Amino acid sequence: MKELQDRILKDGRCLPGGILKVDNFINHQMDSELMFHCSAEFMRLFADRKIDKILTIEASGIAPAVFAGWLMRVPVVFAKKAVPKTMDKAFVTTVHSFTKNRDYTVFVSREYLNPGERILIIDDFLACGNAAVGLADLCRQADAPVEGLGFLVEKAFQGGRDLIAKALPDAQVESLAVITSLDDGQIVFS
Amino acid sequence: MKELQDRILKDGRCLPGGILKVDNFINHQMDSELMFHCSAEFMRLFADRKIDKILTIEASGIAPAVFAGWLMRVPVVFAKKAVPKTMDKAFVTTVHSFTKNRDYTVFVSREYLNPGERILIIDDFLACGNAAVGLADLCRQADAPVEGLGFLVEKAFQGGRDLIAKALPDAQVESLAVITSLDDGQIVFS
Repeated sequence: MKELQDRILKDGRCLPGGILKVDNFINHQMDSELMFHCSAEFMRLFADRKIDKILTIEASGIAPAVFAGWLMRVPVVFAKKAVPKTMDKAFVTTVHSFTKNRDYTVFVSREYLNPGERILIIDDFLACGNAAVGLADLCRQADAPVEGLGFLVEKAFQGGRDLIAKALPDAQVESLAVITSLDDGQIVFS
Repeated sequence: MKELQDRILKDGRCLPGGILKVDNFINHQMDSELMFHCSAEFMRLFADRKIDKILTIEASGIAPAVFAGWLMRVPVVFAKKAVPKTMDKAFVTTVHSFTKNRDYTVFVSREYLNPGERILIIDDFLACGNAAVGLADLCRQADAPVEGLGFLVEKAFQGGRDLIAKALPDAQVESLAVITSLDDGQIVFS
């Protein structure tokens, strides 16, 4: 998606260790108009899939997920990283964060993932694929099939797509900006 | 706002300790259409204020904030509860969570709050007011005036509005559903 790629080139910054900083417009300060356009593109890309619910993970996935849910007229659930007092029973899994270099636990209340619900997973980044596979594991526990996974930015050199293909061979995977290299501080798209 | 009040009566649940559980449509599973309507109402309520930026806090504030930012055509910043690797310099404050009964640290990068920017704070709940006053403290550090604060749900019996009035006497405070009592599991609106 050209608008997103252009914005990454304009405002994204490469940090040491294969990190792409996009907190100017995606994951700290958010450009709502851009997020809306990205969500519209997700709707187009997954038009052939019947989707009952969108699943994302707090916090950076929420903006593109909530616009997509609005456009596609389906509920949006965000997985949480800490169990609040008010959550009774939950599906639980463990995810390794590449950016934060630690494991964390991810939860969805059993009330909000139901057997047979066809799920679209949306998140800001596809890197190693651990968050996506963790969300898919919550869906598996709920017996809810994952129809598709949509990412704003994919760092293709970190292998996440292969991990997803192995875990979810029937799911459609789409990324709006696919980066093949961040070497020497240069952002290269596929 | 009748639509939100009706939904709270339909799907909200009272838990012991003055907790209103709305994770069916606001803060775990989200009804995007309802969030959009709430944001449109914020736009209407704050129409007389010139707003340059919306500030919220992860994670439940993001959905109403990002729709409001889209409608009002201003950037949205969400304060974070843990410093990521990729954040260099930040405004920092401490907030006490009523629901989780603990203190936590809240950050906004210095890049995304600038002197003179007129801020609208949006969040899902106004209870004791600690999160709101914490966000206002980040704005104060940045020398960015808080023009208004918009909440989906106010628990008026927890005194948050008074705390805000003391800290921000010139700011406009609006809540779309004001609850005066949750005693005996009954939701009473003002």
